[in-house]
Amino acid sequence: MVSNLYIGLVHHPIYDRRKEVVATAVTNFDIHDIARCARTFGIGGFFVITPLESQIQLVERILCHWREGAGSVYNPTRKESLSLVRVTRTIDEADQAISGLWQKRAKKVATGASPHRESVSFEFFRELLEDRDTPYFILFGTGWGLTKEVKDDSDYVLAPIEGKGYNHLSVRSAVAIILDRLLGNRINSSE
Amino acid sequence: MVSNLYIGLVHHPIYDRRKEVVATAVTNFDIHDIARCARTFGIGGFFVITPLESQIQLVERILCHWREGAGSVYNPTRKESLSLVRVTRTIDEADQAISGLWQKRAKKVATGASPHRESVSFEFFRELLEDRDTPYFILFGTGWGLTKEVKDDSDYVLAPIEGKGYNHLSVRSAVAIILDRLLGNRINSSE
Repeated sequence: MVSNLYIGLVHHPIYDRRKEVVATAVTNFDIHDIARCARTFGIGGFFVITPLESQIQLVERILCHWREGAGSVYNPTRKESLSLVRVTRTIDEADQAISGLWQKRAKKVATGASPHRESVSFEFFRELLEDRDTPYFILFGTGWGLTKEVKDDSDYVLAPIEGKGYNHLSVRSAVAIILDRLLGNRINSSE
Repeated sequence: MVSNLYIGLVHHPIYDRRKEVVATAVTNFDIHDIARCARTFGIGGFFVITPLESQIQLVERILCHWREGAGSVYNPTRKESLSLVRVTRTIDEADQAISGLWQKRAKKVATGASPHRESVSFEFFRELLEDRDTPYFILFGTGWGLTKEVKDDSDYVLAPIEGKGYNHLSVRSAVAIILDRLLGNRINSSE
């Protein structure tokens, strides 16, 4: 069954530590870790979103190494997970790719470490995903997180992962936990 | 409340891709990501286990930078999470540190990506942790995983994270998901 959940890892527009809007550099570990999570939980696709030409080329080089180059022979499981990755210049470009594939507008779900006035629970989102005719596009911010505009422009904002007074997980850990909460546990019993 | 769960990230003895027993190099991202998870979920401590002198020095240098050096000023939340980290040469040395602190033998719990004959469920382990008088030491393997001997020597082996026919998560993602399954969700309602 084709998954109706897609991941976007946003490198622009996001905040830096002074809450200025910037474009962050791509982190190699993000691509690998998130692609492996995406493959584990059967995600439809993983979009690395960056407008910077140098970063686009970096991602393409990494993908080429593991999907076609020496890496694909050295570690075929990495080839398998990285086959889910695409690079786009903007959130919109990724959004249009998903919406085009489904012939239906994808619903955007923003995430963040801080509480949000109108956030939805994991349980609520998990139930939404059961509507298999609608694609969902979940956005994760790098740096100091997604901008207010990206959140305002999303259909939903997901509740933060609550810790014991500490909300500074890496985006890699946040993706792992959120995908497990949305798609984990029931995997074996549902299919 | 002091947590009774401790994490060990094992760099030796573990398997390499040919199932030979080796010592892996320490990965900087592992230390940061796992320490941040440990702090988020209120873990008692995080032991980086490596017998290699060069790797011990590398970890100490990273810890020093973020706990006392320029990093502690640049990013105080990192100082907070990395304060949970200690380096030991062996699993036993970490085990003894925990058991000494608690004046009681810590129970060891091994993890792995493959099914194990006698593995315990996440729910079972979650209930075990409610016995607040007993410390538990959960071990994660780097490379191709913990050796058979380490698993045999543990009190329990935890069930693997089940994916859709793909079990190749990074150890960072596995730690994040497992801690959330053991200590997440209920954090807000229980305290």
